[in-house]
Parts: sequence; structure tokens; C-alpha cells
Amino acid sequence: MSKKIAIIFGANSYEHEISIVSAITIKRVLEQNNKLDISCIFVDFLNDFYLIDDNAMNTKTFSFKEYKKYPKLSITKGGFYTQSFVFKKHILFDIVVNLIHGKYGEDGAIFNLLEFYHIPAITPNLDACNVSYNKLRTKEYAKILDVKTLPYEYAIADKEISLKAIKYPIIVKPARGGSSLGINVVKNKDELEYAKDSALEYDRDILLEPFIKDIKEYNLAGCKINNEFAFSIIEEPQKEEFLDFDKKYLDFSRDDKPKEAKISNKIKLKMQEAFAKIYNTTFEGSIIRCDFFVLDDEVYLNEINPIPGSMANYLFDDFKSLFDKLCDEVIQNTKTKIVSSINKANNYNYKYINKIQSNK
Amino acid sequence: MSKKIAIIFGANSYEHEISIVSAITIKRVLEQNNKLDISCIFVDFLNDFYLIDDNAMNTKTFSFKEYKKYPKLSITKGGFYTQSFVFKKHILFDIVVNLIHGKYGEDGAIFNLLEFYHIPAITPNLDACNVSYNKLRTKEYAKILDVKTLPYEYAIADKEISLKAIKYPIIVKPARGGSSLGINVVKNKDELEYAKDSALEYDRDILLEPFIKDIKEYNLAGCKINNEFAFSIIEEPQKEEFLDFDKKYLDFSRDDKPKEAKISNKIKLKMQEAFAKIYNTTFEGSIIRCDFFVLDDEVYLNEINPIPGSMANYLFDDFKSLFDKLCDEVIQNTKTKIVSSINKANNYNYKYINKIQSNK
Repeated sequence: MSKKIAIIFGANSYEHEISIVSAITIKRVLEQNNKLDISCIFVDFLNDFYLIDDNAMNTKTFSFKEYKKYPKLSITKGGFYTQSFVFKKHILFDIVVNLIHGKYGEDGAIFNLLEFYHIPAITPNLDACNVSYNKLRTKEYAKILDVKTLPYEYAIADKEISLKAIKYPIIVKPARGGSSLGINVVKNKDELEYAKDSALEYDRDILLEPFIKDIKEYNLAGCKINNEFAFSIIEEPQKEEFLDFDKKYLDFSRDDKPKEAKISNKIKLKMQEAFAKIYNTTFEGSIIRCDFFVLDDEVYLNEINPIPGSMANYLFDDFKSLFDKLCDEVIQNTKTKIVSSINKANNYNYKYINKIQSNK
Repeated sequence: MSKKIAIIFGANSYEHEISIVSAITIKRVLEQNNKLDISCIFVDFLNDFYLIDDNAMNTKTFSFKEYKKYPKLSITKGGFYTQSFVFKKHILFDIVVNLIHGKYGEDGAIFNLLEFYHIPAITPNLDACNVSYNKLRTKEYAKILDVKTLPYEYAIADKEISLKAIKYPIIVKPARGGSSLGINVVKNKDELEYAKDSALEYDRDILLEPFIKDIKEYNLAGCKINNEFAFSIIEEPQKEEFLDFDKKYLDFSRDDKPKEAKISNKIKLKMQEAFAKIYNTTFEGSIIRCDFFVLDDEVYLNEINPIPGSMANYLFDDFKSLFDKLCDEVIQNTKTKIVSSINKANNYNYKYINKIQSNK
């Protein structure tokens, strides 16, 4: 049976354009699966939804602002609708895929919206967003789960920084957001103020970590389906070979097959174990990518990408069937939740308020 | 000029009924201000909105499920609307007040919804919810700001608890939510497993703190208007004198004037200073109550109530004029944000995507 999927993308974030590229890519990948019927919903800077025509899913539609020609959508219980002069036309999807990178997508806003309207969605939930969108929260979350991270310090505007846990050179970055804006490597105390001010332009909270040149970096994506983990291959990402702009573009438009990283089986298992701790159960219903460092045979979590570029499809052997199964599970779980809300609504007895009344 | 206010309350949370009581109370308080025109929007367990008639704002409307008689509302850009067979009737408020206690109200969901639709609201924002809804996050947030809290440990399901930072007796509670469910005092190791299981029924994350009998507890509410703090009086809340149920009811339906706590000026200033650090700038646009402990002349943050019962109106000398001024500021700030989004939408030049195209 054909499944109706809506990819939601765009939104008022620093990653607006990267999200467009990511959506175009994943649409192309998923279209190879005949059982999927794919629509694309663009969110503009004013939080308006547009249903983009199938043959208009290319960069020009957006850069020439032609998306405004397409029908505007409104959200309603269980789905979306278009509205002409008088008639509402309901558009129901089996499931929505959240591909809004950065603000709105990764901070919990879109999840909240879809959940509020009982719309099934492949998306990190609010908790998942909380612990991945702000990198300080990621550190604390990992600590609770006994997953190692590099030592760190934090800073805010009005407080002098004194390094205790780490030594120069360090990397100074805004705590939130996935973009590379406001990040600087600092070699000594003299350079610290500038880096702090630069990060403060993008965030109130700042994270300071040791900068370890040539540290080994690895990416592992995955999700959980029927209580079993489905892991991608582990890739050693290419570094510094491209300009930042090109590198990002390549990352978010990728559908090539990368090579498996050359690491020992022991390290691979350690990485999968750390991934499982991070994912379990906070990230259920989403496909995420964890970025790890390896130092002296020890695995450290660098960051969690709750919505990796083009869903990290290229890292999986059989992304299409994985995606299909995850959709089925999320649709089923949403149905169960809705039934439980309906039962609660029907059976709720206002015991508390009734007690007040009888006491009066 | 008369301002149109909508109080939003209810929702699918453990605090559903307490929110109803809170909304009825604050409506009564605010009605004494002639410049305010107050409407009440009830959210039921299925996330449907109902516009409750002015004279129906009493507990019976809800306990007898009579709210279903009232018009259903849908959210739209800038406001709400009712819909008959064909015609939409737009209902615009100047500002919405979020009085949903617990889930949906205090976890960021309602904030996200209102912000997404550009509706001005007195509400904690997403960041504010993140650091107050989960008590583990509150500890970490306070630490960054140099605000003292009691020492603590955390626990999760699959990990053995070993107490390092604290000693028995301890209090074991679910990390999230404001209800008193799942909380136990534990005197020794034998009682720990039961308390852990009891808390795990309500949350994945558990907080353990020392239980200090007869510790002094104080409440301070406040907000920031025109960059200046407006503090309430400091109250020493009554403890253990009522059953939990009656105590909660009293708290959320209060409009009496309590007595100022007998504390030194030094402690008072310390408490206000800690409040200002916590509030500033995360909680802007909301009226919050911080609950503090005092031990050996030192002030410790216990918890942050981002939506205190009936907005802690009873703690303020002149709540109505404070509320009025805060509304004006939030309405103005929302307008500024919307203008900035419109400018961004109009001027955005898709530099990034254009570069891709010219590279092709």
C-alpha cells in the first residue's frame, strides 16, 4: 500500500537554505521507493506553509521566491488543509518528516506543533531537542548516561572566564545552533575576549572545549525500530579540504555511498554502545547522527545531530526500507497515543474539582 | 484604551484541574481592572480550544463537561477564529496569558504554538521552560549563574544509585513536572528501591536531594518591566498544615494578601539578587515565582515556577497595574519581532543557493 509522506522544511533559521537542499536531496532518495507518495511543505520566514508542486522541488523555486505561487496550507487536527474562497480541502498525510535544520526544527517548535495537532512525524521530540540543540545540555545529558565527552567550561556575558578544566588552545562556540557561525579557535588568553564576544553575538551561553589538532572524528547514524537498533556504517568525515560553504553543501546534498572508517571492532562497538545510550529512549521516532572523537582508544561524544543533513541517508546500506519501517512504527505509536487521549477525555472524572464543590 | 486579554488554560496534564482553578481565580482578580476585557480559552484533553462564556467561568462548566457547548476555536496567524458552516469569524486578542500548569504549558508546547502564529503572550519561552520544567536542568542552570542549590544526585532506571554528594535522609522525586506525585522521603538504603520505582512511574529521570527537616522555605515572585525588576513581597509558605489536596487548592485559588516573611534585609537582598540572575534574560515576558531555602544565612534556589498558581497575584502590592504594564511591553516586543521577520522575508537573498546554481 502506498504511504503518503510530507517533508517539511525551510523556516526562519540560519539553516534555512541548507534545509531546502536537504529536502530536495531526501525527496530524490525516497522517490526511488515506489511505495512512497511524497509531498513537500515549505515553511517561509513568516511561518506560512506552502505545498510545493512535485516538479518545482528545485533550488530556483526558492531563490526566485516562486514558492509564493503555490497553495498556502493551514494545520488542523490530524493534517493540513488548503482554503479557496469558501471550500476547505483537507490534505491528509500518513506521516510528516521534519527536515527543518536549526531553529524551529531542532529546538522543539515543529515537534510541538505537529504533536499538538496529532500529526505523526519523524522528528526529534521536545526532550530530544532540549539535550541536543544546546551543547551545554548535551554535555550534562551524556554525563548522566556515562557517555564520555571532552572536558569543558562554559561562559556567559557578565562573568570572567577562568579556565580550570581545560588548557589552551581551546575552541569557543555558541552553545546553541548547528551553524558554524561565532566559532573560534583561541591559542592564548589575549585572544579570548574577541572569541567570547564573537560567540555572544549568536548566543547567551558559550561553550569552551580543548582544541585538539588532528583528533580523529567519526560519524555514526541510526535509529531504533521494534526495540532493535539499526546502525549505519561509521564514517570518518573529510575535514578542511573544502571551504566551509562547499563542505556544508556537500554534506546536506549527499546521496553517495561513503567508505567505512578503518577502526578496530572494539572501538566500533564502543561507539555503537555510546550511541545506544544517547538514543535510548529520548530520541525514539527519529533518525539521528552522533559525532564522536576517538582519543587514546577512548570514545567521546562530540555532538548529537537530531536531524542530520538529508537524514544521513548515505550512511545506511538500505535507507529506504529502514525509513519505511520507522514510518510504520511512528504512525502506529501516534495512533495509540491518540486513542489513549480520547479515552482519557471520555473517562476523566474531575475528582478534584468535584471535591471542591462538595466542600463548599 | 481597553485591552483584550485571553487566558488560556486546561490541557492534557496532571495539573489540568489546578489550571482551571487558577484561571477562574486570575480572571476574578483581573476583572477588577476596568481597562481589561477578559476572555477564557479552555484546552481540553484532545487539544481542542473552546471559548468559554464569561458567566460560565466556574468549576461546574468543566466538571459537568458543559464546556463542549461553547464555540470551538482554531489558531490562525495573529489570533483565533470560530467557524460556522461557511463563515470564519476572526477573534483577535491583544495578548494571551498562558495559565496551563504542567505539561503543554510549562514544557514549551503552548509557547511554541503561540509564537509560531505570532500571537503575543505572557508565557515562559522555550528556553525558560527547558530550565524550569526539568529540575535537573534547573540545577545546572543555577550553577552556571552562580546561584546556590542544595547538593544532589540523579538516577535513571538501569543504573545503581550510589550516594556521594548527599546523605540520608533524602527526598527522591521525578525530575519533571510540578505535581507531588512520585515523591518520597527515604531514611535509609532499604527504602531507596521503592522510592526509585515510585518516581520512575512518572519520569525517566530522577532527582535525589538531602531532606532537611524544618528547613526554612521562602517564595519570591517577580518580573522585569522596562529593564527594571518588580519584586513581590517574600512569603514563608505554610507547610504540612493541610492535606496535599487542600494545600494545592488554596495555593492556586489564592487572592488574599499574605504577610511578609520575617527575614533580615541581607537575606532579602540575597534572595532578590538570586531571583534577578535566574530571571535575567531567560524568563523575560513572564511572571515567575522562585522558591528558596535558607540555611545558615545562605540562600539556595529550590525551584522555579515559570507559571505560578493564579500568577502569584496575591504576593504583589499592585498586581493589576504590574500585569497591565507587562502586557504592554510584551505586545510591543512581539510587534517588533514580527516586523523584523517581515523584513527578513522581504530582503532574504538566497546567497547560498544562488552560489550553488552559479557553480553548476
